[in-house]
Amino acid sequence: MQAIVKEKRAPGLTVKSVPKPTPGPGEVLIAVRHAGVCGTDLHIADWDAWAQGRIKPPVVIGHEFAGEIESVGDGVMGLRAGHLVTAEGHIVCGHCLQCRTGNSHICRNTRIIGVDRDGAFAEFIVMPTTNVLTLDEIPTEVGAIMDPMGNAFHTVLTAEIPGSTVFVVGCGPIGCFAVGIARAAGATKVLASDVNPKRLALAAKMGAHVTINAATDDVVQTVLAETDGEGADVVCEMSGVPSALHQAFAAVSLGGRVQLLGIPPTHVPIDFASEIIFKGITVYGVIGRRMYQDWHLMRRFLTSGQFDPRPVITHTFPLAKIDDALAAIRSGDAGKVILEIV
Amino acid sequence: MQAIVKEKRAPGLTVKSVPKPTPGPGEVLIAVRHAGVCGTDLHIADWDAWAQGRIKPPVVIGHEFAGEIESVGDGVMGLRAGHLVTAEGHIVCGHCLQCRTGNSHICRNTRIIGVDRDGAFAEFIVMPTTNVLTLDEIPTEVGAIMDPMGNAFHTVLTAEIPGSTVFVVGCGPIGCFAVGIARAAGATKVLASDVNPKRLALAAKMGAHVTINAATDDVVQTVLAETDGEGADVVCEMSGVPSALHQAFAAVSLGGRVQLLGIPPTHVPIDFASEIIFKGITVYGVIGRRMYQDWHLMRRFLTSGQFDPRPVITHTFPLAKIDDALAAIRSGDAGKVILEIV
Amino acid sequence: MQAIVKEKRAPGLTVKSVPKPTPGPGEVLIAVRHAGVCGTDLHIADWDAWAQGRIKPPVVIGHEFAGEIESVGDGVMGLRAGHLVTAEGHIVCGHCLQCRTGNSHICRNTRIIGVDRDGAFAEFIVMPTTNVLTLDEIPTEVGAIMDPMGNAFHTVLTAEIPGSTVFVVGCGPIGCFAVGIARAAGATKVLASDVNPKRLALAAKMGAHVTINAATDDVVQTVLAETDGEGADVVCEMSGVPSALHQAFAAVSLGGRVQLLGIPPTHVPIDFASEIIFKGITVYGVIGRRMYQDWHLMRRFLTSGQFDPRPVITHTFPLAKIDDALAAIRSGDAGKVILEIV
Amino acid sequence: MQAIVKEKRAPGLTVKSVPKPTPGPGEVLIAVRHAGVCGTDLHIADWDAWAQGRIKPPVVIGHEFAGEIESVGDGVMGLRAGHLVTAEGHIVCGHCLQCRTGNSHICRNTRIIGVDRDGAFAEFIVMPTTNVLTLDEIPTEVGAIMDPMGNAFHTVLTAEIPGSTVFVVGCGPIGCFAVGIARAAGATKVLASDVNPKRLALAAKMGAHVTINAATDDVVQTVLAETDGEGADVVCEMSGVPSALHQAFAAVSLGGRVQLLGIPPTHVPIDFASEIIFKGITVYGVIGRRMYQDWHLMRRFLTSGQFDPRPVITHTFPLAKIDDALAAIRSGDAGKVILEIV
Repeated sequence: MQAIVKEKRAPGLTVKSVPKPTPGPGEVLIAVRHAGVCGTDLHIADWDAWAQGRIKPPVVIGHEFAGEIESVGDGVMGLRAGHLVTAEGHIVCGHCLQCRTGNSHICRNTRIIGVDRDGAFAEFIVMPTTNVLTLDEIPTEVGAIMDPMGNAFHTVLTAEIPGSTVFVVGCGPIGCFAVGIARAAGATKVLASDVNPKRLALAAKMGAHVTINAATDDVVQTVLAETDGEGADVVCEMSGVPSALHQAFAAVSLGGRVQLLGIPPTHVPIDFASEIIFKGITVYGVIGRRMYQDWHLMRRFLTSGQFDPRPVITHTFPLAKIDDALAAIRSGDAGKVILEIV
Repeated sequence: MQAIVKEKRAPGLTVKSVPKPTPGPGEVLIAVRHAGVCGTDLHIADWDAWAQGRIKPPVVIGHEFAGEIESVGDGVMGLRAGHLVTAEGHIVCGHCLQCRTGNSHICRNTRIIGVDRDGAFAEFIVMPTTNVLTLDEIPTEVGAIMDPMGNAFHTVLTAEIPGSTVFVVGCGPIGCFAVGIARAAGATKVLASDVNPKRLALAAKMGAHVTINAATDDVVQTVLAETDGEGADVVCEMSGVPSALHQAFAAVSLGGRVQLLGIPPTHVPIDFASEIIFKGITVYGVIGRRMYQDWHLMRRFLTSGQFDPRPVITHTFPLAKIDDALAAIRSGDAGKVILEIV
Repeated sequence: MQAIVKEKRAPGLTVKSVPKPTPGPGEVLIAVRHAGVCGTDLHIADWDAWAQGRIKPPVVIGHEFAGEIESVGDGVMGLRAGHLVTAEGHIVCGHCLQCRTGNSHICRNTRIIGVDRDGAFAEFIVMPTTNVLTLDEIPTEVGAIMDPMGNAFHTVLTAEIPGSTVFVVGCGPIGCFAVGIARAAGATKVLASDVNPKRLALAAKMGAHVTINAATDDVVQTVLAETDGEGADVVCEMSGVPSALHQAFAAVSLGGRVQLLGIPPTHVPIDFASEIIFKGITVYGVIGRRMYQDWHLMRRFLTSGQFDPRPVITHTFPLAKIDDALAAIRSGDAGKVILEIV
Repeated sequence: MQAIVKEKRAPGLTVKSVPKPTPGPGEVLIAVRHAGVCGTDLHIADWDAWAQGRIKPPVVIGHEFAGEIESVGDGVMGLRAGHLVTAEGHIVCGHCLQCRTGNSHICRNTRIIGVDRDGAFAEFIVMPTTNVLTLDEIPTEVGAIMDPMGNAFHTVLTAEIPGSTVFVVGCGPIGCFAVGIARAAGATKVLASDVNPKRLALAAKMGAHVTINAATDDVVQTVLAETDGEGADVVCEMSGVPSALHQAFAAVSLGGRVQLLGIPPTHVPIDFASEIIFKGITVYGVIGRRMYQDWHLMRRFLTSGQFDPRPVITHTFPLAKIDDALAAIRSGDAGKVILEIV
């Protein structure tokens, strides 16, 4: 089968033919139809410091996908050939304290597809049934981006949203999803900031009442002015930009909540007194998707039509054009970029 | 001033002239513009068992209203003549354990306007400033019904709504508000039941995806069929009808939540094992409005436009026509009935 | 091997030799050392209405136990022969919405050992590894009663205990466990009621500050007098007795919480207005043990020594003396009754 | 009356005679019996940068106290001469969004006694009745330190304590209180770190199972070793020391909770990825005491005897010896230092 492979400990990706995998007991073989391209794939292609420390080539990359079950291994019940499915890309141990107490998303033994084992940028992928979710009427191009969308659901819906003012910092794909989710979950006012006008336009399309250009506007003053001077009840930090992190803390209301998803590249000096303690706020680190509450919520929001992520998809490429897909992401102007594989 | 007075320990109400009250220290005098008529007023007019045990005539009745501040007493800050306002009708002690720990809505020393002291069916009313809330751009006919709407906010928003299926049992005014609030707060599917088609039509107007005529349809089977066999995540029991109460417990999902607002007229025999315990559900008794979180949420939902209660208002009468107002309620076909006083 | 078998659709139990089971893939074979006898076993022996509707003889009964792993099936990791273990007796499907969202304790496909399949009153039992928990330094006579103790942990620790007043209604073994857990979890005052002085003495031994004889004392007045007239913040209803259920609602404080575990034999007429709604309380139905948070908490409380359930164990019998064990329970004077099997 | 006054915008304090205050409407006059000395008083005495920005001399300092009501102003109900009382030192506005929604502890208009207006290091102080709490059987030397103890209650009891492992970072008086509160609230294991052996001895006296000398031991490794490699479920950061802050994040378990009370002197560079986000933790900024839930809990813990803070009180001085009291704090060896005033 054709696949996108990280072959060597050096920059670059290879589109090549690799053996089609076979499902073992409790596993299913899925014919991939659509796959989402993520910043993580860019890090692997570029062979940055993180990739050098984590990736062991050769490995098929890609961790966001949806497709059709081709065959099932021994002992698989409830799933069968022909089902359209997506999958949680974090394969957890099931045995650790976190897994046993409902917190698999922070399992210390997590193996990520397309990172720690073969992934989804391929014609076929094998997955354990625990991780597989049926799409029902959700189209596969949407199913293919439920992994990053799930990060946004985790970020937004672990805060109290109905009647809240919500400030989304950073309008990449996950930030744009967060805007739409906050609207669909009853936020009273949604504000969004970014330095890129195209991304701000996407955020507006997803329902942001107010967009703030962080390159030209005073972000914190705008949030305060739009919230009766109180600040936003909930701030979703999706950028990982140090200056934006300070804006997040400055723009949250007294007693509010800051959800942290964006990964800053370095240490960021924080004034704990004025930024956190004296404001009496709560800060929450968002990693992965709650298994499988966030997937359940996603299916609810998607099948009911109360949330539609498709405006965020700006580019679609065939598998062989992975370099063009990565270039679109690098440009900074893209929303979500996906691969069409079948 | 003109007022509607319960004069004697017998059925009936009197529209008559009474002395205009004067605001004491920390109080404001409000010229009432609109007032909501409630089932409680009907009980007082009819002089039923509850009224006989609670009401000490003569008393001006009415507890839902909005109007304009006419003058303020000594020491009042932040409020002044000309402000359009509404008020929480439960006057609490501020000293008991519940008041001191953020639960004033269950203060054991609560005195209710129009019940335990003079109320709002009058040209003027005096209120303590603690209970007064400015309307900002909310019109007074909406302000006048924020008290019962607040019950609905309390009922709906103490449950987890985004992505949930919500079943509202009973489509009187508070049930219809609950339907609209659940929609605005991100419920995935809202179902509503009643025996009266006019009320079901109002519920549909407020956004119910599914309306169920309890007189002719199988309520529980319909809810199960509409929720993939799971039942509703959240059930709001607003009817107080014993058979509906059983439907509430039967229609809630495993691990779900039943919010109880409707007051059954008698003891209801419950099978705790099958209706509550084996289902692992949570049941919550809703009384009044959380002070003043529910009022804050209401102002957010109303001023943002994400919730508009006005379709529920079906009748408006002048003060002198209180008997017509009560007749409209008695008919069972009315939504919210209000008085226009100025 | 020797086992206690429900052989026929009629009253009685049989101690007899049955084939020793073999562990399949993902299963372990456990040599039972101690097993707890429960009211459920009594229902099965007596062949009451519930048993007639649920049990399909022949079946080895018993669902509370601890022992030593004898051998493991294919693919079992982390567990091996020689490990001392106990097990959750509810075998859940893992696929339903409840299982997938962290609520396995209310899985609608639950199969209970000793009820729906062969159980633990035998020299050996086979269990799926998911349900098995290592005992570490916990002795097997304690491990054998972690199932009912887990009900008590679920009941008590889903309420807010530190600084609370806690009223335990019914001092059977689970009620007595609840008393000790509430103490260990920082309750300020623990009250317990029962009609049996021996059980009240056990509750006192487990740490109840106040014991109330419901046969002779005014239960509600005593609770109010002992709680500054407020009532208990948390009430754990462990009796299933209708009159005690009313005492639970009357004795809970405004805004308090009633945890329901005891199963009333019939419908109980409830005055929803005065017992639940006007008090603004929360009622929670307790079923099973949260998997596996409650087991984790139990291991913490037991291995730290902050809670010791052993005073509740009043009788120990060999397997062959099951009739004596059941007679001890029937007497009403017993605490926890266990079987010593090896 | 005698009082300790910050007279001039320069280092130093003056013990002098000042006019005895008079209670206005809604206020009480309290004869101070005991008062607690706090790091804040040291900052004011030393006239550091914070003090220069905040304090407007002349002002009577001191914000922790207990005493006897001497007389009451107009309209005061429920309190009268002879009552032994303490008081919340944060006087809040009652009108802002935070005050109106149950979060007075973060009222933006807070005025602190002994900082923004005259305080408690005096023979008499006037307080609004809202802030006054009766001591019942709590002695005044304990009542005098309920303000800092309330910070510890706020810190500990906004986390889930029963069955948790709790790590207290910094064993000043509030840290030592936190140790004792965590024990009394059912923590399974309490660990405490400091660089001062005398303070560690105090923490041990208050119930710490494990004390860690941060000057000589590997703090993080010790916590991990003592918690089966998981880290502590709850970390209370009471030191404000930058290196200790990193230890807090390193020592908290995956999915755990870090409560921040200590105020770092400068910005602290944080690696958000590894310290917060990838661990999936929650961080909460603790300011003041929840009004008045934390006071209610304190009275429960103190009057029941489940928590006794007195071992933390190491020094008692008369009012005139304030310089000796400050010197004791400066030494770093003191626990809580109090003044005996009558």
